[in-house]
Amino acid sequence: MHLYIGNKNLSSWSMRVWLVCTAFDLPFEEVLVRFSTPDQAENTFAQTMQSLHSNGKVPALVHDDHVIWDSLAICEYLAELFPAKHLWPEDRMLRARARCISAEMHSSFTSLRNHCPMNITANLAQQGQVLWSSYSDLRQDVARIEQIWAERPQPEGFLCGHFSIADAFYAPVVSRLISYQFAVHPSSQQYMHTMLAHPAVRLWIQGARAEIVA
Amino acid sequence: MHLYIGNKNLSSWSMRVWLVCTAFDLPFEEVLVRFSTPDQAENTFAQTMQSLHSNGKVPALVHDDHVIWDSLAICEYLAELFPAKHLWPEDRMLRARARCISAEMHSSFTSLRNHCPMNITANLAQQGQVLWSSYSDLRQDVARIEQIWAERPQPEGFLCGHFSIADAFYAPVVSRLISYQFAVHPSSQQYMHTMLAHPAVRLWIQGARAEIVA
Ligand SMILES: N[C@@H](CCC(=O)N[C@@H](CS)C(=O)NCC(=O)O)C(=O)O
Ligand SMILES: N[C@@H](CCC(=O)N[C@@H](CS)C(=O)NCC(=O)O)C(=O)O
Repeated sequence: MHLYIGNKNLSSWSMRVWLVCTAFDLPFEEVLVRFSTPDQAENTFAQTMQSLHSNGKVPALVHDDHVIWDSLAICEYLAELFPAKHLWPEDRMLRARARCISAEMHSSFTSLRNHCPMNITANLAQQGQVLWSSYSDLRQDVARIEQIWAERPQPEGFLCGHFSIADAFYAPVVSRLISYQFAVHPSSQQYMHTMLAHPAVRLWIQGARAEIVA
Repeated sequence: MHLYIGNKNLSSWSMRVWLVCTAFDLPFEEVLVRFSTPDQAENTFAQTMQSLHSNGKVPALVHDDHVIWDSLAICEYLAELFPAKHLWPEDRMLRARARCISAEMHSSFTSLRNHCPMNITANLAQQGQVLWSSYSDLRQDVARIEQIWAERPQPEGFLCGHFSIADAFYAPVVSRLISYQFAVHPSSQQYMHTMLAHPAVRLWIQGARAEIVA
């Protein structure tokens, strides 16, 4: 099973699936395809990914000669493939909630996404200040995310009990809130600490740092 | 089981879930909450929906005293609740594909979504012409959708064989392509005809027309 991902420092959609694979110790091999930069003569990223599947984006999972793309669909595929690992919560209603917040992340928060691209190693406090005061829809996005986080069952726990796909989906937001230094409530800070202490999250961040040094 | 939806003429996210419930003959009661208009003294839509769940949007499903929101999460919940109905394709790889294209619809095509809100009964050919020539990202969105549709297993069939959640997710696009009169390939037109002939799609469109007359 091969998981194609982009740069760890930048690719928020890749991060989600990689975290799920790593946190649940799934048997996978990582294939890192670096994004091409404007100064490159050829877009080697696009060439590689478009030869794999018609949407040409990361993440993509290759398994049994099939390509599955889109982070949420890949996670559902993995949840079916490894039922004993409980990538979604076991409890039916917690599972429904985990899917609600993951699908909401998938379809919403376009202001946060457009204005604040993930860049794990950067300090973007200055840009953050300007963005925060300029865009009310950005402030609304963050408020809604804090509301979702505040509804978690235990203040010291993850979004739906144990670490699940839902937490992986919100991990890039944790990173953005840090880089752009948006002020959030103590309860949100507690969740961010919980996430930053998770071994899979730490490994991904280490990988992002290593990319920049390299 | 109660499904809260918005105006049939306008609410593309409601349409998807309602089509799934109707096409698969699931036991549900529809609760139509009309969007408030700017001239109303109070936003009764927001009041009703926010008393139900913190995101305050439609669609929302109320079942066993729990509220499930977000169209994709509701569909996954229903697929689990009624396994014998096969809301997703039975074949594992077709099911993976159905989830890929549904999740891609959920997370992408923001240009089509922002520029071309669904409005089933309207003729928006003139706006369509202007939008089409103005926005390359809109043209790209439509091109990608046509590509997804062209990859369906049978030209005379649905996106992943039988009618599934995936088709319900693309139904609002069928409506938009008609309202805005974007020119699409014969293969796409064939898929649109197949969709328009589906009894659940016809019923929803009838409902949208009835709203306008009322
Ligand atoms: N909805 C997709 C989005 C994937 C996506 O946008 N990936 C970005 C990188 S994070 C990408 O591959 N961009 C390159 C491109 O658009 O060519 C998912 O969840 O996987
Ligand atoms: N991602 C959500 C989107 C739901 C959504 O945006 N619903 C719109 C109507 S189609 C809504 O309720 N808008 C009212 C509002 O934002 O207050 C889903 O798939 O259900």
